[in-house]
Amino acid sequence: MTAMLINRRDLDFMLYELLDVEALTARPRFAEHGRETFAAALDTAHEIAEKRFAPHNAKADANEPTFDGETVTLLPEVGEAVRAFASAGLMAAHQDFDLGGMQLPWVVTQACMAMFQSANVSTAGYPFLTMAAANMLQAHGSQEQVGLFLRPMLEGRFLGTMCLSEPQAGSSLADIRTRATPTAEDHYLLSGNKMWISGGDNELTENIVHMVLARIEGAPPGVKGISLFLVPKFLVNADGSLGARNDVRLAGLNHKMGYRGTVNTALNFGERGNCVGYLMGEPHQGLAQMFHMMNEARIGVGLGATMLGYAGYLHSLDYARDRPQGRPPTAKDPTVAPIAIVGHADVRRMLLAQKAYCEGALALCLTAARMIDDQHTAPDAEARRRAGLLLDVLTPVVKAWPSEWCLEANKLAIQVLGGYGYTRDYPVEQLYRDNRLNMIHEGTNGIQALDLLGRKAGMAGGEGLALLLDEMRACAARAADVEGLAEFAAALSAAADRLRATTAALLAAAREDAERSLANAHVYLELVGTTVIAWTWLRQALVASRRRDGAPDDDAAFYAGKIQACRYFFRFELPRTEAQARLLSALDDTTLAMKEAWF
Amino acid sequence: MTAMLINRRDLDFMLYELLDVEALTARPRFAEHGRETFAAALDTAHEIAEKRFAPHNAKADANEPTFDGETVTLLPEVGEAVRAFASAGLMAAHQDFDLGGMQLPWVVTQACMAMFQSANVSTAGYPFLTMAAANMLQAHGSQEQVGLFLRPMLEGRFLGTMCLSEPQAGSSLADIRTRATPTAEDHYLLSGNKMWISGGDNELTENIVHMVLARIEGAPPGVKGISLFLVPKFLVNADGSLGARNDVRLAGLNHKMGYRGTVNTALNFGERGNCVGYLMGEPHQGLAQMFHMMNEARIGVGLGATMLGYAGYLHSLDYARDRPQGRPPTAKDPTVAPIAIVGHADVRRMLLAQKAYCEGALALCLTAARMIDDQHTAPDAEARRRAGLLLDVLTPVVKAWPSEWCLEANKLAIQVLGGYGYTRDYPVEQLYRDNRLNMIHEGTNGIQALDLLGRKAGMAGGEGLALLLDEMRACAARAADVEGLAEFAAALSAAADRLRATTAALLAAAREDAERSLANAHVYLELVGTTVIAWTWLRQALVASRRRDGAPDDDAAFYAGKIQACRYFFRFELPRTEAQARLLSALDDTTLAMKEAWF
Repeated sequence: MTAMLINRRDLDFMLYELLDVEALTARPRFAEHGRETFAAALDTAHEIAEKRFAPHNAKADANEPTFDGETVTLLPEVGEAVRAFASAGLMAAHQDFDLGGMQLPWVVTQACMAMFQSANVSTAGYPFLTMAAANMLQAHGSQEQVGLFLRPMLEGRFLGTMCLSEPQAGSSLADIRTRATPTAEDHYLLSGNKMWISGGDNELTENIVHMVLARIEGAPPGVKGISLFLVPKFLVNADGSLGARNDVRLAGLNHKMGYRGTVNTALNFGERGNCVGYLMGEPHQGLAQMFHMMNEARIGVGLGATMLGYAGYLHSLDYARDRPQGRPPTAKDPTVAPIAIVGHADVRRMLLAQKAYCEGALALCLTAARMIDDQHTAPDAEARRRAGLLLDVLTPVVKAWPSEWCLEANKLAIQVLGGYGYTRDYPVEQLYRDNRLNMIHEGTNGIQALDLLGRKAGMAGGEGLALLLDEMRACAARAADVEGLAEFAAALSAAADRLRATTAALLAAAREDAERSLANAHVYLELVGTTVIAWTWLRQALVASRRRDGAPDDDAAFYAGKIQACRYFFRFELPRTEAQARLLSALDDTTLAMKEAWF
Repeated sequence: MTAMLINRRDLDFMLYELLDVEALTARPRFAEHGRETFAAALDTAHEIAEKRFAPHNAKADANEPTFDGETVTLLPEVGEAVRAFASAGLMAAHQDFDLGGMQLPWVVTQACMAMFQSANVSTAGYPFLTMAAANMLQAHGSQEQVGLFLRPMLEGRFLGTMCLSEPQAGSSLADIRTRATPTAEDHYLLSGNKMWISGGDNELTENIVHMVLARIEGAPPGVKGISLFLVPKFLVNADGSLGARNDVRLAGLNHKMGYRGTVNTALNFGERGNCVGYLMGEPHQGLAQMFHMMNEARIGVGLGATMLGYAGYLHSLDYARDRPQGRPPTAKDPTVAPIAIVGHADVRRMLLAQKAYCEGALALCLTAARMIDDQHTAPDAEARRRAGLLLDVLTPVVKAWPSEWCLEANKLAIQVLGGYGYTRDYPVEQLYRDNRLNMIHEGTNGIQALDLLGRKAGMAGGEGLALLLDEMRACAARAADVEGLAEFAAALSAAADRLRATTAALLAAAREDAERSLANAHVYLELVGTTVIAWTWLRQALVASRRRDGAPDDDAAFYAGKIQACRYFFRFELPRTEAQARLLSALDDTTLAMKEAWF
């Protein structure tokens, strides 16, 4: 089965035509880059993803990690892939040149990561987590901590993990119980149990660096008493050599429906009373420190969900073009040869829906990644501030919408293949199983909804959302006079108005009755998400409309597809936000009023 | 893990309060029955489902059937379960007393089957297929064929299969290639390959009876040249003893994402030129004969989808009541104990949605089963005819809606359990994998959509749909004056009007441009389905409203839950049909106009 990772024409469209990533090279940090260096990085990523990641994707699913009580065993291909990734410098792709990095824009590194996620999301999990942990280390670690741990992580010699959840506290970090006891030395002793730790133990590399949330003895209760610790699997001597095995032990593996190649673990810290952890930054700042990397990690999860959907779309499109079956409803003569199923309107509906979900989601993820670049490197402070506000509002949407709708795309990919799609002989069923995780991890979508409505929508006087609405209105204004787009411009404008009015009603109500206002947070998240995706589609259709005339045939067809997918999204998907806005504006209390005894 | 098969209070509500199944005992065929004999059958089914089917559900998933080139091996528990089912007389539950049957109403037998499907849908597949094949045999077999094969099937000594699909022809029966050559004797010789045959080979019983579609040499092309054959695995002598092994061979097994306990096979007929098949009924009538049992089989698939969703609902409800985590959004004090997650509005949303989908779907499936009883046993011919027309329209909905939305329920059940739900330690992930099949088999939902809009909606001058709309309007009229239901009565009435107008527009357009009219058949199926489920909910809420006052506490809570689920469905789900009706009435051609080169 040839891996179909991404439509590179589409990726180029997103980066260069939609997001003008080349403009970033005007900034000092990216001055040594140009489209050719971006292309080189993308080609390298594509090649490694195709040759080292894709080939063992199904095999790792069928042969999940095992634990014999001492050691976790993974397929050898996993380690080879991670090493190839690191050797190509991709672990440090966005890092400074003087750290051995490539100093690439974040949006380009995410475009690279996208191909690994569609090739093999489970194996991509190891570098993904390591890069996130390295970012936290850079942001919050002491000079000494950074000095000891960062380079080995960027070189792929040490992997990283995030240790937040505990068996009794998944989404509720306020209830974390892991304890940290100060010692006379520079470290604390940790004790407690962590759950759902991806990459928590393995033999892929020489060491693992855990980023652990724990409470220092005497800390205030709740989230205000959580601190962040660095806990290595093996201690590291001052010269960088490995020291003793630390007291962090694998309690067991979780056996999942999908995403099986990423070993997921329960870890015990300090079973023998000797688990060394190093405090990062100030005490009791752990939650804020974690949130610092949340935008990036959540956008990464959204991108992973997107690429699982995207891979399924490409596979089902390929199948639909090759598979002859049936005839158009008006062609009754059974002696005429069957047509390829892509010729059936309902199959095209399923393909067009997948295209609209996945390319719309990819545009959103890369837009958000581009904003991360703006947040850090935009020339003026005001632009950086605005990018940060936009990101705050968009992050829960980027995490949640693709994890719902690109999963729906995977469901449709199976349907296009029919019975074959339900078998393990084709990749689409694994993509569907893998993708189901993304609604859950890195904060369930219910948590994202509370974050969006309970915090982000009203944050900074609602400025983040206002900026987003401004972007939508500006896009609608640009499209209003473009042939064929006026209908969608009007619809986006109306949708933005609905979103504004709905938000105002919910925030006003929250002052009287926060529980009632928040009870439909999930519907609000859906409303915002669908409106945001409509915005990404009108932006894409605008670019396509401008470039379509006079383009070579292949390009003209590509642009026509973008405009058609935009039309699909505005006609088939966006209209449901009208009913959602009515429900929300009425402050419906159906779920809130439901009593447990009535179930 | 205790199996949670069904809420028996809910099942009793459906049978006795909603559908007045006891009234059937006034008909001669059911005169010897009463509520106590129905209850005895339901209790027997419940006990066997719980003790013989549920315990090996996860085990059969983890240990799928194997084929060593000669023999298919299943878990021994599967055979024990099928034998227990047959020994209790359930294989013949609706059959005549003089065939050893119980002469139960179809709706009661379906209520029994529901519990097997929620306990273990894969093992339930064997009796399900056998009963369907037995019904075909009764309807179309010669006296001799019935005499030889029916009793062993009803006694569970012979199992049955349906052999329609071929590798090159899944949904397109016009392209079936399996050939039947007449001989000088009473049989034909068959040759060809069949695909996706559930139960196609196994050692559970002494024989298997295949119902096979094939073309007699010289038959007209397309569906008009298909005939139905009975092909036993072992020939049966005139005295009922087994004869020679017939030339039907297992070519291989299909390895599925779920539903793994039902062995799914590719079969070769006549590899050695000696596959004996007996023509059933007249030549070239095979498709019509198959459709004869389609209503029943498709309703069975819808019921299976419903019960997988229902089981997930019960499991996630149980979990949500037991699992403490987090606090209400307005309770900020982290030293207060966490609440059970059923206390969170978003968890209640996910539970209420599951309840609304699954209990709504169950009401629909049992309503349809009750119509099958009316079709066969209603006292006057006109009532029988009307029941048949209603069934024709409802059947594609009963098959498709639960397979979409009770799958959605399974997705939500996983979400309620969070990370735990994604592991194989809990049953909800298997239910989700199992349920994904139901959108595909027994005619994909795309085929159901074409059947509904292309045939059923306009059939008999549209009388079937008109009868359905009459039922909805009558229900709305009854509810209009009931306290608390006026809002929903008005909404159902408006939805029925929308459905009528949309159908008229589509059927009128079909006379000009059938392809365009049919291009959005799937959206039409969704529109009809959601409207139909709203109708089942208003009917349930009506009964609950009437009985709520003065009921004992438990009953009052149960009825309050029904009314709240009705409210949920009308507020959160039904409104999306407005946008669907607009899209359909505008005869949108987005999918039809999409060109292959644009993808």
